[in-house]
Amino acid sequence: MHSPDFDPSQLSCPLPQDSVEAIHLVHGGGGRLTWQLIQEVFLPSFRRHGETGHDPLSDPPHDSAVIRTGDGTRLAFTTDAFVVQPLFFPGGDIGSLAVYGTVNDLAMAGAKPLWLSAAFIIEEGLPLGTLKTIVQSMRSAADATGVRIIAGDTKVVDRGKGDGVFITTTGLGLIPEDVVISPARIRVGDKILLSGDVGRHGTAILSVRENLQFEGALPSDCGPLNGLVRAMIKQAPQSLHCFRDLTRGGLATALCELARESGAGMSLDESQIPLQPPVAAACELLGLDPLYVANEGRMIAIVAPEAAETLLGVMRAHPAAADPRIIGEVTAEAPGVVELRNAFGGSRVLDFLSGEQMPRIC
Amino acid sequence: MHSPDFDPSQLSCPLPQDSVEAIHLVHGGGGRLTWQLIQEVFLPSFRRHGETGHDPLSDPPHDSAVIRTGDGTRLAFTTDAFVVQPLFFPGGDIGSLAVYGTVNDLAMAGAKPLWLSAAFIIEEGLPLGTLKTIVQSMRSAADATGVRIIAGDTKVVDRGKGDGVFITTTGLGLIPEDVVISPARIRVGDKILLSGDVGRHGTAILSVRENLQFEGALPSDCGPLNGLVRAMIKQAPQSLHCFRDLTRGGLATALCELARESGAGMSLDESQIPLQPPVAAACELLGLDPLYVANEGRMIAIVAPEAAETLLGVMRAHPAAADPRIIGEVTAEAPGVVELRNAFGGSRVLDFLSGEQMPRIC
Repeated sequence: MHSPDFDPSQLSCPLPQDSVEAIHLVHGGGGRLTWQLIQEVFLPSFRRHGETGHDPLSDPPHDSAVIRTGDGTRLAFTTDAFVVQPLFFPGGDIGSLAVYGTVNDLAMAGAKPLWLSAAFIIEEGLPLGTLKTIVQSMRSAADATGVRIIAGDTKVVDRGKGDGVFITTTGLGLIPEDVVISPARIRVGDKILLSGDVGRHGTAILSVRENLQFEGALPSDCGPLNGLVRAMIKQAPQSLHCFRDLTRGGLATALCELARESGAGMSLDESQIPLQPPVAAACELLGLDPLYVANEGRMIAIVAPEAAETLLGVMRAHPAAADPRIIGEVTAEAPGVVELRNAFGGSRVLDFLSGEQMPRIC
Repeated sequence: MHSPDFDPSQLSCPLPQDSVEAIHLVHGGGGRLTWQLIQEVFLPSFRRHGETGHDPLSDPPHDSAVIRTGDGTRLAFTTDAFVVQPLFFPGGDIGSLAVYGTVNDLAMAGAKPLWLSAAFIIEEGLPLGTLKTIVQSMRSAADATGVRIIAGDTKVVDRGKGDGVFITTTGLGLIPEDVVISPARIRVGDKILLSGDVGRHGTAILSVRENLQFEGALPSDCGPLNGLVRAMIKQAPQSLHCFRDLTRGGLATALCELARESGAGMSLDESQIPLQPPVAAACELLGLDPLYVANEGRMIAIVAPEAAETLLGVMRAHPAAADPRIIGEVTAEAPGVVELRNAFGGSRVLDFLSGEQMPRIC
């Protein structure tokens, strides 16, 4: 079902060729240039000889790496650096975000998150009270998700060489025996479930950053997804084919990545994608497409069609979801392409985020 | 053998009380204030209820956390952020340092390093060629140590909010069944082995940073220790009680930490500590005590006395060591205190590094 000839980097180039010889903010945006940077700089160096990395069925990129220890135990292993500004925002802070972000990446591999490390890069002058508040928030988030922060490091950089604090969390989790979650398992006919409304995290951050007051503004959706994943695994482990949390680049980028990694075509019903009116209003004011706005507590699940309604029911019953929906399905037409059908019978192809909508959103 | 009443934080305070209400560069120096920050901010939040964290025999702090999976497999897990300036220095760069630093922390737990993650925080404007060079250096260092870099993340921060690139590496390794390396195993009579000359990394960095030309200047000792550790384990696994690599704060701080964590007293023979003449000259010029200057490829091993000469022989035969020596022993006198005896019959007590000798050395 995969299409090795499809290469989104050939579609367009959002920056003049010569300007990509230096790193731009857009390289960190989670869109096309982030993808290019990974493909052209990191993977060629870090991939071992003999690994193609191009065949999604043998080596699908994923939110977590999967390690097998001697006895067959499978561990998920993932890392994320958090550079969000401001450090505190409606619904969260860099500390809770750093814990939930990595916990969610583990959960997206089907793993039970267990252990975290945290490395702090602190700018000289950060008030000690600010650091304590952030660390306490990490502890609360760890308790809420059942993980332990067991290793850490602290570095301090001179004033003007950092920005308050950056936090890198790395997570380890155990994948249950009967669970195989991978883009390689996506099949034609699978249903695409979305756990809730989109665009909350990005608009919450922007509302503070730009000092905008939106009427009825909503807090970030920043929160843990591991409990929801556990409930879904308990219900129908074999029917769960792939998960992906929505972060940088939003729903559209997550689906484009999965479509590319699996070679699957996806057809979405735009009317089924939940969007809260204040988020829609904020996006209109700021000129943003909500499908590309960041979330930090929403996920998509691609599941066998016969279990879709049951699993939607599990989502509805779980507090981590909010108005979950079946938003589309995997199709045999146009492998690797995500198509969005609107209520008027029209459709458009969703592409990777080009350019940078919102720097330092996570 | 431990002394719960000993608390080095009570000995002196290198900053006025009110000035510790914000983070200073010295908090990242690896000395007393780093230790205080960990004790007062991180451990109280991250430690679970019921864990004392004060009894070195039940919960000794260490370079790596140790995880037990269901079948009894022991994994070492450790993280480090690297913020060294300049990014390239004689004998290494931030990329090789980030790999060797974390590999060495795993080796210090007796583990065979296997998997690494790498998270990059890049300042807008970093030349792409610089990033590629650093990433290639990481790959070379990974190959040299037998680890695989299997997970990563990239974030970009605005110009003036970072400093070229910061790299956080997190490592996972397997601890062999017959190996128990811990400060809790240190015993009176144990010998203290040092794998080579001290102070190279710190003086190499400073020579570039201050644009100083030392005659016969030596490159950093930045390099891997896992091969040396493996050779020692092969020779005498039961006789190896504790390892520690020398990083921020140098030999003196590493020994003070171990003495505090184990409650052991240590008596060192100053004449046995190897110091290359160019390093001694540089330290004299810069007003630095070489015992506190950073290394990135040296370690101490605390071993059963009957195996000390054999293990010294293993060190001598290994390319990662350079003029290794037995520099002292663990004593019953003055628990928790490190005493340095000089050639003239005098002695002084080594204390944690106070203040900041060299910011951003790693």
